Amino acid sequence: MIITVKKNASKEDIRNLIKGFENRGLSVTEIQGESFNVFGLVGDTSKLDERLIKANPFVENVTRIAAPYKKANRLFHPEDSVIDVAGIKVGGKENIVVIGGPCSVEGNDMICRIAQQVKAAGGVMLRGGAYKPRTSPYAFQGMGSEGILAMAKARSMSGLPIVTELMSADKLDEFIEYVDLIQIGARNMQNFDLLKAVGRCDKPVLLKRGLANTIEEWIMAAEYIMSEGNDKVIFCERGIRTFEKYTRNTLDLSVIPIIKEKTHLPIIIDPSHATGDWKLVESMSLAAIAAGADGLIIEVHEQPECAWSDGAQSLKPEKFQRVIEKGRAIAHVIGRDM
Amino acid sequence: MIITVKKNASKEDIRNLIKGFENRGLSVTEIQGESFNVFGLVGDTSKLDERLIKANPFVENVTRIAAPYKKANRLFHPEDSVIDVAGIKVGGKENIVVIGGPCSVEGNDMICRIAQQVKAAGGVMLRGGAYKPRTSPYAFQGMGSEGILAMAKARSMSGLPIVTELMSADKLDEFIEYVDLIQIGARNMQNFDLLKAVGRCDKPVLLKRGLANTIEEWIMAAEYIMSEGNDKVIFCERGIRTFEKYTRNTLDLSVIPIIKEKTHLPIIIDPSHATGDWKLVESMSLAAIAAGADGLIIEVHEQPECAWSDGAQSLKPEKFQRVIEKGRAIAHVIGRDM
Amino acid sequence: MIITVKKNASKEDIRNLIKGFENRGLSVTEIQGESFNVFGLVGDTSKLDERLIKANPFVENVTRIAAPYKKANRLFHPEDSVIDVAGIKVGGKENIVVIGGPCSVEGNDMICRIAQQVKAAGGVMLRGGAYKPRTSPYAFQGMGSEGILAMAKARSMSGLPIVTELMSADKLDEFIEYVDLIQIGARNMQNFDLLKAVGRCDKPVLLKRGLANTIEEWIMAAEYIMSEGNDKVIFCERGIRTFEKYTRNTLDLSVIPIIKEKTHLPIIIDPSHATGDWKLVESMSLAAIAAGADGLIIEVHEQPECAWSDGAQSLKPEKFQRVIEKGRAIAHVIGRDM
Amino acid sequence: MIITVKKNASKEDIRNLIKGFENRGLSVTEIQGESFNVFGLVGDTSKLDERLIKANPFVENVTRIAAPYKKANRLFHPEDSVIDVAGIKVGGKENIVVIGGPCSVEGNDMICRIAQQVKAAGGVMLRGGAYKPRTSPYAFQGMGSEGILAMAKARSMSGLPIVTELMSADKLDEFIEYVDLIQIGARNMQNFDLLKAVGRCDKPVLLKRGLANTIEEWIMAAEYIMSEGNDKVIFCERGIRTFEKYTRNTLDLSVIPIIKEKTHLPIIIDPSHATGDWKLVESMSLAAIAAGADGLIIEVHEQPECAWSDGAQSLKPEKFQRVIEKGRAIAHVIGRDM
Repeated sequence: MIITVKKNASKEDIRNLIKGFENRGLSVTEIQGESFNVFGLVGDTSKLDERLIKANPFVENVTRIAAPYKKANRLFHPEDSVIDVAGIKVGGKENIVVIGGPCSVEGNDMICRIAQQVKAAGGVMLRGGAYKPRTSPYAFQGMGSEGILAMAKARSMSGLPIVTELMSADKLDEFIEYVDLIQIGARNMQNFDLLKAVGRCDKPVLLKRGLANTIEEWIMAAEYIMSEGNDKVIFCERGIRTFEKYTRNTLDLSVIPIIKEKTHLPIIIDPSHATGDWKLVESMSLAAIAAGADGLIIEVHEQPECAWSDGAQSLKPEKFQRVIEKGRAIAHVIGRDM
Repeated sequence: MIITVKKNASKEDIRNLIKGFENRGLSVTEIQGESFNVFGLVGDTSKLDERLIKANPFVENVTRIAAPYKKANRLFHPEDSVIDVAGIKVGGKENIVVIGGPCSVEGNDMICRIAQQVKAAGGVMLRGGAYKPRTSPYAFQGMGSEGILAMAKARSMSGLPIVTELMSADKLDEFIEYVDLIQIGARNMQNFDLLKAVGRCDKPVLLKRGLANTIEEWIMAAEYIMSEGNDKVIFCERGIRTFEKYTRNTLDLSVIPIIKEKTHLPIIIDPSHATGDWKLVESMSLAAIAAGADGLIIEVHEQPECAWSDGAQSLKPEKFQRVIEKGRAIAHVIGRDM
Repeated sequence: MIITVKKNASKEDIRNLIKGFENRGLSVTEIQGESFNVFGLVGDTSKLDERLIKANPFVENVTRIAAPYKKANRLFHPEDSVIDVAGIKVGGKENIVVIGGPCSVEGNDMICRIAQQVKAAGGVMLRGGAYKPRTSPYAFQGMGSEGILAMAKARSMSGLPIVTELMSADKLDEFIEYVDLIQIGARNMQNFDLLKAVGRCDKPVLLKRGLANTIEEWIMAAEYIMSEGNDKVIFCERGIRTFEKYTRNTLDLSVIPIIKEKTHLPIIIDPSHATGDWKLVESMSLAAIAAGADGLIIEVHEQPECAWSDGAQSLKPEKFQRVIEKGRAIAHVIGRDM
Repeated sequence: MIITVKKNASKEDIRNLIKGFENRGLSVTEIQGESFNVFGLVGDTSKLDERLIKANPFVENVTRIAAPYKKANRLFHPEDSVIDVAGIKVGGKENIVVIGGPCSVEGNDMICRIAQQVKAAGGVMLRGGAYKPRTSPYAFQGMGSEGILAMAKARSMSGLPIVTELMSADKLDEFIEYVDLIQIGARNMQNFDLLKAVGRCDKPVLLKRGLANTIEEWIMAAEYIMSEGNDKVIFCERGIRTFEKYTRNTLDLSVIPIIKEKTHLPIIIDPSHATGDWKLVESMSLAAIAAGADGLIIEVHEQPECAWSDGAQSLKPEKFQRVIEKGRAIAHVIGRDM
């Protein structure tokens, strides 16, 4: 950690500051500059609060050198982590996984039918929302437990593991019993109590990036889960909020190589929520594979214009299949299978 | 609601679309344009899902005319709502309220001492974090229930109502028993289960704006609380996330007149979290009052450089008092008291 | 165009508003809604100023139905435009073009050597900055005319057409004489006088997206050039400014299918400026090709750590060649050549 | 400047890097950390290119300690600069200045009439656009030289100095002859050739902040002007681009205390362009004064709904006068006059 101190700081202030660091077992080196003096701290600074140091009026700035995350950090875990989701392996050199399914579960028959279509097209997991985070309290809020049971039934019939979103820790037992991959949605990426709760269970977690969260905050959210004991985290990029209005969000594909450099965990891409427009899903899916993603999660619906939510971004099964076929050919170019 | 339809849409598609709307009791007017045709829907469109309509491949665009919120909407509730927080009135032409206190409660004595200082300076409510949302799992997470009890003790001694953040619905009973104003933090602004939970209780709610949430989404979050029966919502702006790096967030003061135009609810400003820098708190506080805010919530600490969190943005009690004195003079200019 | 009017508007105000529109040859349809009334205008609304209409205090909102651009609009020009740059065709089903070269021209020998390396690797055009837009007045500002002449020499030796940035209309004659493709940089995307100047010449223009410009503003910048008579515009995405700090900018690849849907013009991607990090260039280049880009513009330098500008984002020639080889294989998957 | 180096960097690489710095007269201190090593450079680092150093693959990060600007930096110029605009003093403890006038000059009579109204209301300078930067090539582009002459005439009649926007260096002579304060618009804030051109003249410059430019880039734009010899720069905040849609831009009032801390130059606020909505102008004007702004620039029009541009954000003269009256009372509270 580097601390920049104003030239007019009193000797006593400086002495107290340094003593405080040394009492925590850190060693301190001073560099006298022309406009400012600089102190470099060596040792475990992960528990220092940079904003606290900045509260000293004579401190100009504080810069962290080492990343604030440890368990997710590739520096301390050089090999890729491969996450096992009910037998489907995600990450490393494993096959690129494609997850398909409707935005919302709309009934038993519907989700079982789509599960078959997803599987026939080459998908290896089934998605479907039972508890739905909706901007409006007047919009459809999901089928709840009934939807979870319908998903479980679709799994029995199709053999596809299921992924669905957990919005509240009080439903965690239900998810542990029925769900294979627990999704934490973008709006809850910094719901720290929820992160801790899934961190204490043994299920893999699909951690979506918040709409306005930096990559570092996203990795810190994974660190919350991992620090409670659960290492099975899969990142999922779904677009960030920008000034652009032609798309629902701006898909940031550069996170794929960055997450792989900074962490050892897998990352998949959600082109449906990122763009909000089914016409953009194929090109963004292919781009994600070319950029090295470990998987895709795509919304699929038989009649998007009748979907109970988010029809505008859902693919029909035949288009979903075409994405997988083209995606497979691109995967081969970069040395992976799908 | 206005629906823009491509010129190449088939007559049958159009007929089905219109029939669907008419079946829901809406009346439909068509305007034939040069590049597109347009359909105007009249009736209660609040339950229509625009993204579903957009899923029709022949639909170019959907535009909502009426705001999607009702209970918060000033159109249907022209008078200002005044919220009573344990005897302190917020909003309308009432006195501008100043809430002060530390970022985190750090102990019984500390919070009682600060409560006295806040009161002496002219503050009318006490803030203090017991459950703390922190980006890092390795940072201080708050004193929890012990902190809540310390806050309650500080209230007994000072007479100041207390406000603190609720992060999880399973603590709601504790908050109903001890807390006067329940804060929903920025990171939980779209934690819809939490919004519904506080919506079912009878306590006033301080609803912070999410870091990347539009004003409309913010009002919709209030609508979630109100639609469950709790009308006592106070908005709190605390800065939004932008590209700028010199401040922690960008304080958007234009929300004050906008919230007052669109809704009937009060709005207060948090200059401490918005800027992240105590040197900016005074000027932004005065600006907020000049712009018509109904209150301020300001972090106060005796020794900011020793605070357990967010010292960089805390004022010492004497500076806090100066803000109130100047703020009072500005309040008088715009016809209010403080 | 749709105009939303408040219910309390006076009959006279409405009558005057409508008469104004009718005098301009527009036909007006009224729809009486529950909270607002709506007027739909049919005819050529491209010269109406929506903000002027909004200046009427009884107008709630104005929504444009037809896009404000005409010459760039695919609706009126359904076939792809293919732009010829000194014999290299860009767009449509033509080969994907790769442009390579240094951020700054650093001398005759240097640029000639790189031109040969770019060509050997499979690049078909040479880039190189002679006039450099730098954030700091104390940074290297480019070789100027000397750099243009060096570029021209590199063209003679290699046969590669050259592209370089024009920052000021007073250098246009020099560019018309020596340059094959005139680049308008991100910071000048709304330098309207410069747009008009290149619009009056006959050279193809590479129009970079501004750091914070919407896709619509970007197309309107192309419209500026085209409305002066020059139809040869190629769009170039180079990342937008967001809150994220791990990358220099956020590359928005969804613009590729959107530009192709809304306009008939080609689009290429600049992964070097978008990411600011050579380690991300390969994956973003492959992603861009998979998403349907018509070309790439990539910074190439023999010794990036000695480059006079932007070394951090430059590829060495052997890495540049590897990108082209992998890119070609991906191009084949989506039915193009490169 | 602080350079973070990976642990696996070779000794030779490190030696070469250090030698390079020492050859430039910098002294280098090394701190061996646990995950990285750190080098601190002391001396004049303002001409070092941090991105070039980052191009070395063994360098993890580069952090600048000293600000990259010198002439604008308060550290080297502790007293406030007061800029004289044809006798009107701006900055320091001088009176807060109010500039009023239409978005576009619409004719001789119109601008003379508004000049009188602006003066009568208490305004001390006249604004008015003659060359207009418009997003659409089909929108009114301003009266050009005729508008400049009309402004000059309005000055003769009213005695008010005039401010108008320069879009192209080839009109500079006209501006030097007729204009008192040359405005550089938001879209040209990084049109570096234009900045250098006004830097070589002797007129005061009103430098608007770019829509997506950081405060540091904005100060660097001032530095461009000052480095050419012209010290008379006044900053003007006019809102930045964010995700919010209810306002045209997001007004960032925290820049007022920040510009005053980092630089010695004055800063004024443009609430009209920032909000795009006349209903928000009064509250944002009062807020700006309370926050310490040195002035306001406000759009005034007799009939906003008939303005040739930007009517939606213009005040009628009587409202303009009310803003000044209330603003004056707020100015007194913070110890200034207006």
